[in-house]
Order: sequence, then structure tokens, then C-alpha cells
Amino acid sequence: MTQKQFHTAIKELKKLKLGMFNKDFLLTWERSDEEIKAVVLVAELFKEMHKAGISFRTFDAGLAISIFRDKSTRTRFSFASAVNALGLGLSELDEEKSQVAHGETVRETANMISFLTETIGIRDDMFLGEGNKYMREVGAAIQEGFERGVLHRRPSVVNLQCDIDHPTQALADLMQLRSHFGSLEDLRGKKIAMTWAYSPSYGKPLSVPQGIIGLMTRFGMNVSLAYPKGYDLIPDVVKVAKKNAGQREGSFAIVESMEEAFKDADVVYPKSWAPYQVMERRTELLNKNDKPGLVGLEKECLANNAKFKSWECDERKMKLTKKGEALYMHCLPADISGISCAQGEVSKNVFDKFRLATYAEAGFKPFVIASIIFLTRIENPVQMLQKLTKKRNHG
Amino acid sequence: MTQKQFHTAIKELKKLKLGMFNKDFLLTWERSDEEIKAVVLVAELFKEMHKAGISFRTFDAGLAISIFRDKSTRTRFSFASAVNALGLGLSELDEEKSQVAHGETVRETANMISFLTETIGIRDDMFLGEGNKYMREVGAAIQEGFERGVLHRRPSVVNLQCDIDHPTQALADLMQLRSHFGSLEDLRGKKIAMTWAYSPSYGKPLSVPQGIIGLMTRFGMNVSLAYPKGYDLIPDVVKVAKKNAGQREGSFAIVESMEEAFKDADVVYPKSWAPYQVMERRTELLNKNDKPGLVGLEKECLANNAKFKSWECDERKMKLTKKGEALYMHCLPADISGISCAQGEVSKNVFDKFRLATYAEAGFKPFVIASIIFLTRIENPVQMLQKLTKKRNHG
Amino acid sequence: MTQKQFHTAIKELKKLKLGMFNKDFLLTWERSDEEIKAVVLVAELFKEMHKAGISFRTFDAGLAISIFRDKSTRTRFSFASAVNALGLGLSELDEEKSQVAHGETVRETANMISFLTETIGIRDDMFLGEGNKYMREVGAAIQEGFERGVLHRRPSVVNLQCDIDHPTQALADLMQLRSHFGSLEDLRGKKIAMTWAYSPSYGKPLSVPQGIIGLMTRFGMNVSLAYPKGYDLIPDVVKVAKKNAGQREGSFAIVESMEEAFKDADVVYPKSWAPYQVMERRTELLNKNDKPGLVGLEKECLANNAKFKSWECDERKMKLTKKGEALYMHCLPADISGISCAQGEVSKNVFDKFRLATYAEAGFKPFVIASIIFLTRIENPVQMLQKLTKKRNHG
Repeated sequence: MTQKQFHTAIKELKKLKLGMFNKDFLLTWERSDEEIKAVVLVAELFKEMHKAGISFRTFDAGLAISIFRDKSTRTRFSFASAVNALGLGLSELDEEKSQVAHGETVRETANMISFLTETIGIRDDMFLGEGNKYMREVGAAIQEGFERGVLHRRPSVVNLQCDIDHPTQALADLMQLRSHFGSLEDLRGKKIAMTWAYSPSYGKPLSVPQGIIGLMTRFGMNVSLAYPKGYDLIPDVVKVAKKNAGQREGSFAIVESMEEAFKDADVVYPKSWAPYQVMERRTELLNKNDKPGLVGLEKECLANNAKFKSWECDERKMKLTKKGEALYMHCLPADISGISCAQGEVSKNVFDKFRLATYAEAGFKPFVIASIIFLTRIENPVQMLQKLTKKRNHG
Repeated sequence: MTQKQFHTAIKELKKLKLGMFNKDFLLTWERSDEEIKAVVLVAELFKEMHKAGISFRTFDAGLAISIFRDKSTRTRFSFASAVNALGLGLSELDEEKSQVAHGETVRETANMISFLTETIGIRDDMFLGEGNKYMREVGAAIQEGFERGVLHRRPSVVNLQCDIDHPTQALADLMQLRSHFGSLEDLRGKKIAMTWAYSPSYGKPLSVPQGIIGLMTRFGMNVSLAYPKGYDLIPDVVKVAKKNAGQREGSFAIVESMEEAFKDADVVYPKSWAPYQVMERRTELLNKNDKPGLVGLEKECLANNAKFKSWECDERKMKLTKKGEALYMHCLPADISGISCAQGEVSKNVFDKFRLATYAEAGFKPFVIASIIFLTRIENPVQMLQKLTKKRNHG
Repeated sequence: MTQKQFHTAIKELKKLKLGMFNKDFLLTWERSDEEIKAVVLVAELFKEMHKAGISFRTFDAGLAISIFRDKSTRTRFSFASAVNALGLGLSELDEEKSQVAHGETVRETANMISFLTETIGIRDDMFLGEGNKYMREVGAAIQEGFERGVLHRRPSVVNLQCDIDHPTQALADLMQLRSHFGSLEDLRGKKIAMTWAYSPSYGKPLSVPQGIIGLMTRFGMNVSLAYPKGYDLIPDVVKVAKKNAGQREGSFAIVESMEEAFKDADVVYPKSWAPYQVMERRTELLNKNDKPGLVGLEKECLANNAKFKSWECDERKMKLTKKGEALYMHCLPADISGISCAQGEVSKNVFDKFRLATYAEAGFKPFVIASIIFLTRIENPVQMLQKLTKKRNHG
């Protein structure tokens, strides 16, 4: 990054009206267009600084806490990378190690872990109706503690994936699109196919497709959502996507085949998920601890999935896209036919062609997370960025 | 904190004669009154610096190791926060992950983990006669390594709760009292009721009540210890409390009902614990690996607890305290009747009134731990504090 | 360390031709003599800086990742200490916590964890033919990511013990020898006995003896390897040792008794291992998941071990060494007769005499690891060292 590029970015950032300081970051559609732009801008700056060997360490000390209620490699390491780069120390709240599982209220624990904490990243995507709710409970508890003088500083809660949205993924995807097409403005009029795909595994969360339709409809894209009958997303999120598209250029449509969605698409995002109604039933059964019911539901759901094995992103379908040259996207890990499973979301040939592109896509995530933490914790981001770039360091 | 307040604190600290450098911190009653005052003073300084956004990072690098032989959320995060704020990296010695469980001697392991280590925090409160002893073994091993040139620096062992004392909790409680009444001097003549309370759970450690009677008797308080027949504390610690009170203003008395202890109390600390004799038998049974014996002991102990369900801190009993307005304290998590259990240590109404006060009480702990590490690792604390406050930073 | 000593070390370092930057460190015999010398030189500098309270923190931020496929205390903490001292944040890739165990390819994961990472330390010593291979896969994946622009920086893979070599241990041992005899040059003509020793436990890796014969044959030492019939090391590594000795002063010989190896030895390194052929069969059985086969192999192997209980390093055998005063070495933990087992690798008396010496031996390891990371990640090590020593800090 040249000095000039840096100054241009800073200038752009100065113009944006932001209200993120001392707030949580839970759903992209709760943040204004200007705030989304700021997240992208700062993430890009951090990425360029890292490339140039300039540290963007912002804090001298402070904790970042992660709460993962699900297995994770890439999000775990994205968060670890981001907080480390900002100068924070990571502490994981492992519910097996802690007393959380033994009757402590969320309210109390949230304060107990926050006395010298700057941010809390939470991944809780297993149960419909639970994950985002839990994040809000943590946020409310911290807010009370801050207002009542228990906490000197107000840590921000960052959604690292919930039942509703996966904002850091969707924003990394947005940066991948921006990088592919040149700018956010260049996304206007581009068609993205967000489609269901077959997977032999069960219970994949809805947060990625929901995140994509909730975010990309804000940039003038033509978003085509495709899934087999019965594989609906949460209706409220579909409403958000419709509303977004209605208020802006671009469009949002639901279609019934991968082929239709792929037609003339500039971008395809084929990814499996479990139907929203199944996830609802699953949550009910889990709450009742109905084990036979859960086994039955899984069996039923996998049998249903198996009807749609043709929903695979293969070379034939890729030919339907614009000039047969659409960008393939995936949040990883993908179910690759003949590699990770007999038959899955994407054929080996298609995946191989885009393997490094999907790695690059994932590579935006640590910078997106760092940017979100930065903007929710630093009152004057422009001033801080100017301060950071003054001291060049790194090995 | 104004410049003036900082200078006053530094002046006060300069006057104190300290012998904590390169030593462990295992029991409050092993440290002089001046050293206890220094811990409080530095903790308060760190707290004010944090509030003002001034980092008190003291180390450029170095490890802090925690060894937890029991589940923990708040102590774990207090320690994590404290060492991070001082600039140390946290490594947890998890005995399941390590070879400790496979015949390695404490002596060897203590040295192996200490080559670039500044402090080792240990929580080992499960077995009477074991926890504190283990800490001393670690301390002795490190001392030998340091003296014989194996270790360049001498990490300090910090007691994060043992079978005898819970010094970081007791000191956090002391800071809460100091904050509530205005100063350490203002504690003189105040009555504190440290009382047993009913809990449906078994085997709670004795370290909190022992820590309280061992520490608060040094500040001219009138300490009233109450428990049902048979729920004695370790006799040696009771002797310490008696001796403390005898050498100073104030008093120490053991009474037989919560009501009597609460009468005209300025502060109440109702908290369950297992009888010392039961903990002794438990340790014996554990050493013999006598599982039926352990089950029997637990049953017997819970049945005995159940005789004392009336030992609940409720509004009626709170009315007995001075003007009905005593400060309620608890180390958390409390067993709250109707919330965390059917019937417990404290009624919902009483707890609710003091909920945020108990959070604030807990909020002193990270600063107490940081202060102890600072004073055991920094040879000239006044000089270092002056150096730290020169460079203002933080986001 | 005086200013003069520092300048002498820097001068020496300047003369060495190094090709370690942006490379992995997997086997000592893949690195030139000059590179090995550089590792020792920088490790010694770091050790002296630490002793003098001068930080050698090199990075402002960045991740270090550890992957441990086996239990470990000392290597885990050595790595944690080293990366912390360099300024990196440690993240452990725990395969139970992550999705690695669920079909993700090594290639993908390696990139996913490396976006802001400087180094990846791997310990994978369980299966013959697997550990080192895995490290090379990780290295190749990272190299591809770096070349294709996915990664801005190229993390170095550091072998923390594999099936073939244990380079950080062997280098720490080399530093212990250097410290004992005065200099690397003084090792010329000294006899070291690397011998098998009896242990009641099964499946100990071959990497330590292989590391020792692969490294010490490069410094003009007379290396005498002794083991009972059937306890062979990997033939390829034995070839390396032979070739090393052939190209330099010194010698390499395989003998059939501890006594013969100990005769006139300046140094003895008695340590148990499982025969290479047994490890091969074990890997096959593990791959087939043949549990009865594995149980049978263990039984057979332990029965065979038991035939060689006389292979214990005791006072009588120590008398055979040069003037009866050889240096005893061990990577720890040792199987000490009457302490950690009924009968083991070394008698209590011999171990006790050298206990602190073995601690000191282990104490080199964190500095060796730090040195390797430094030399693989810093393009101009001399310049960086000069920069580091300019700013004196530490508590």
C-alpha cells in the first residue's frame, strides 16, 4: 500500500457516520450501509498493513474471550489471529472447564469474565432460536455492568456465527467479491446464485445462506436463492433480503433449481443446509432430551437429502453461468465428491479450479474480525489508524 | 485518578517495608501488615489506571502458568486478566494434557515449566492437607532451581485457593470493605458476620471463611464466626484469627446462630462449607480410593446439612443487622433460593439487592492478583510504577 | 554477557552463510554446519540476554501454532516459552476441538491456520513413517499458499519431535555438551555413549537416539551406539551418522553392550526406545485398527524388554567411563529405579548426582526453539539482534 492509497482510505473513512463504538456486532442488517463500508475499509487497511509488514497492534494489553459451542478450526483461528494482531490476549471460555454448566447465570458469568476484557466472540449456531438470543443476553449483561460501574470498559460481543447470521463470513465473502470485481460499486448488477447443495451430513446451519442473502442484497446485486422444496430459510431473514433489494437497485428471487440460479450468474455459492423446519423440530426434541426422536429426525432428514443428490455443483452446471466463468465461493470445508465424501456439494474438478480462491476468500476473515473489534472498541478510529501507521515495526 | 492522588499513593507505598520480591504468596498471615497494605495500594493504583485507560503492562514478555486442580470460571479469568495486563503470556498446565499424571515428580515439572516464567498461580482446594502443601513443594523446587542456576529468574507461586486460605479472594473482599467504608482505617470497630449457610451441595472448601477470619481480624474489625455444631474450621486457622484479634483492636468470637452473628453487623458474609472433620475423612477415603466410603460420606454430610436449612440469609435476618442495612458479601457463585436451587445460602430478594455489589466485589480480584505478582516479581515497585505512568497508552 | 562478548558473537554470526529464512526446520542433517552453528550462537545470545534481563522480543504480534499429537509437558512449555519471548501469541490446534478430525485435508487446514502466523511447531512421534511426512505435507501446503498469494508471510514449520529426529532436543543436548566442555571445538575427540536402557514402558520413540547420532557425529565426537540385539534404529538414520563420521574427524560405532559403550566415555546418554521393527509393525496394526494385534505386540515387546533389565545406568557402569566421571545426560523424564518404577533406565544414585544437570540440559530447549524460529523468520538476523539489544527493558 502506498502512502497515497492509505490517505485515500483514511479520507473515505472520515466521511462515514459511525455508531459502532461500545456496541455489539450481531447481525449485518442491524448496521448501516456506512458502517458496513467502514468494516470493509478498515479490514482492507489491516490486510495491506500486514502485507507490508506494518503492525496494526492497537492495544497494549486486554483480554479477548471466545465462547465456542461447536467445533471449529477456521473461525477459532481467525478470531485468535485477529485479537492477537490487535494486541489482545485470548482466553477461551470452555464450558466443560468452567462452572457455566453448573447453574451459573449467563448474566453473572458475562460480568465475571469481562473486568479487563475488550471483546467477546461467540459461536453458537446449533439450535434455532438460541444462538443469537444468547449473544443478546451476554450483551445486555455487559451493558448493565458497564452502566452500573462494575466494568470500566464495555467489551463488544462479536457474532462468530449464530442460528440467524454469520456476519464475519458474509463480510469476508463481500471482500472476496470486492476483490474479484474491483470495488463495492462494481457489484451492482452482478448476479450471485446462493444455492442449496447436497451433502451426506446432517444439521448444517442456515447462517451462511442467510448471511449472504441478508448482506449481498444491499449492494445492488441480483441475488438468486435456490433450494429444493422444503429447504426453506428462516422467513424473517428472507423478508430482510426482500426489503433490502426493494430499497435498492438489484433484486432478490427464490428459484427451484440449481440450474435456474446458475443461469448467467457471475458468482455461485453452492452450500448445504438443513431445512429451517427441521432445525425447529430438532431444537424442540433437544429441549425435551428426546433421543429416539432425534435419531428419527436425523434419519428422515438424511433420507430426504438423498432425493436431491443432483444438487451438485459440477462442470456441466458451471457452464450455465456467465460465459461459463462464474466465481465459485464456499465458506469451507466443502463436501467435495470423491474427496471428502462419495457425493457432495461440489465436484472435484470444479473445486480444484477454485481451491486457492476459496483459501483467499477465507483469508479475509481475520481482517474482518479485527476490523469489527477495532470499530466497536475504538472511539476515534481515524485518529488511531494514523497513530498506528506512524510506528512501523514487525520483523 | 488525579496526578495528586497518584503521588499520594506512591508516597504511602515508599514508606512501607516490603520483603515480597522473589517470594511466594501463599497465606495472608505469612505477610506483614505493611505488605498487605502494599498489595491493596498497588491493586487500587492498577484499578484506577485501568479506569483511566493507562496500561500497567510491566513485562515485555514472560510466561504465567496456571495450575487448576478444580473447575473454575472466575478465578481462571481473574488470573488470565491479571497476567495479561502485566504483559505475561498465560499457559495452563492441564494435567490431562501433560505428563504430570504419569509419574513425573513435582520437583522436576516445576523446573521444566519455569525457564522463562514469572509466576505460577495454583488452585488446589479439594483435599485437606494437600493444596497448600503442594504449593510449597512447587515453591521449594523453584527456589532450588533458582539457587543452583537452572532458572535465571525466580517465578513466584501465587495461591489462587487452597485448603487453608483463599488469599486473593480475601484481599478482594478487603478492598470491597475499604471501598464501602472509605479506608482501611475505617474498618476499625466494624462488625463482620462470617457465617455458615445452607447449601444443597457437598464438599465446599473452607478456604473462604478461613481467609476472611484470618485477614479481617488484622484491621480492628469485630469478626463474628457462626456455624452449626460440627461445622468447625481448621483449628490452626482459628488460632491465627484469635491471635490477630488479641494483638490488635477488634475481636474474634464464635457464635452458634446466624441470628447472633448478624446482630448489629455492618457486614454479613453467609457462605456454605463442609465441616473440617468431614473434609479430613474425605481425604483419607480418597487416598484409599474407597468409593463406597465416599458415597456414604457424601450422603451422611448432605443429610446433616439438611438439618440446617434455616441457615439462609433472608430479609428477616438482614433486619437484625445495623439499621437493617449491612453490606452483603459473597465470593460467588451463591446458591440462591429459587434461582440456582430450591433452597440455598441466600434468598432471592436479598441477593437481588446486592447482586451488583457482589459483582463489584469480584471485580477487585484481577487487580489484587496483578498487584501480588507485581510485588513478588519487581524488586523496586515504586520505580516501576513511576516508569509505567510515564507512558500513557491504551486504545 | 558483556558488550564485548555480544560483539564477538555478532561478528561470528555475520561470517556464517545461512539459507534458513522462509524455510522449515525438520531434520538437523538437512541444515548445513554453518546453520547449526548459527542456531547454537543465537540460542546462546538469547539465553544470555534473558539472564541479563534484556528482552529478545522480536515480533509486535503474530501467531505461533502448536500441533501436539502426543502428550507432552516439557516440549509444550518450551515452545510456549520460546514463542512468548519472541512476542508471538500461542494457539494450540487441538484436533479434538477442531474439524481436522472430520475429513478436512491437511492442505486446507494448514492454510486456514496460517493467515497471520509466523511458525507452526509440530510434535508427531507416534507412528513410524508418519510424523515427518505429515510435517512435510504441512510445509508444502504453506509454501503453495505463500507462492500463490494466499499467505502474505511464510510460517516456518518446526519439528518438535517426529518419528525420525528430535532436533530441538538434540540441539539442546549439543548446547549442554558445549557448556560442559567449553566450546563446540572442544567436543572433538570426546566419546559419547548413546545407549539403549531398560524401561518397563512400551513404545518409546526412536527420535532421541536418532537425533543424537545424527547430530553429534558432525562435531568430531566418537559416537558409540549400544543396544540389545533387535533394538535397531531406522537404517537410513544410521547411514546418516556413518556418513557424517566418515566426512569428519571422530567416529561412529555400534556395540552390543552398555559396558562397552561406557568404556572411557566422556558422556553417557542411556535411554530406552522401542525397536524400529516393532514400531513398523505397530503402525501397520494401527492402520488396520487391529486391537488384539496391538495388545499382543505390546505384550511381546514388554516381555522382550524384560530380558534386558541389566541395561541400567548404575554406579558400577559409570565407573567404566573416563576417570569414572562421565557426564550423564537424559531428555527427561527418566525412568529412575525405585523412584518412577521398580527398575528402569538409571539408578537413583546416578540420577540424583546429575539431577540438576539434566534440568540445566532441558533449560537450553526454549532458547534453541526461539533461535530456530528467529532464523527461519527473520531475513537479516544480525540487524535484528542489533536492534533488539538497543532497547533494554524487562522488569
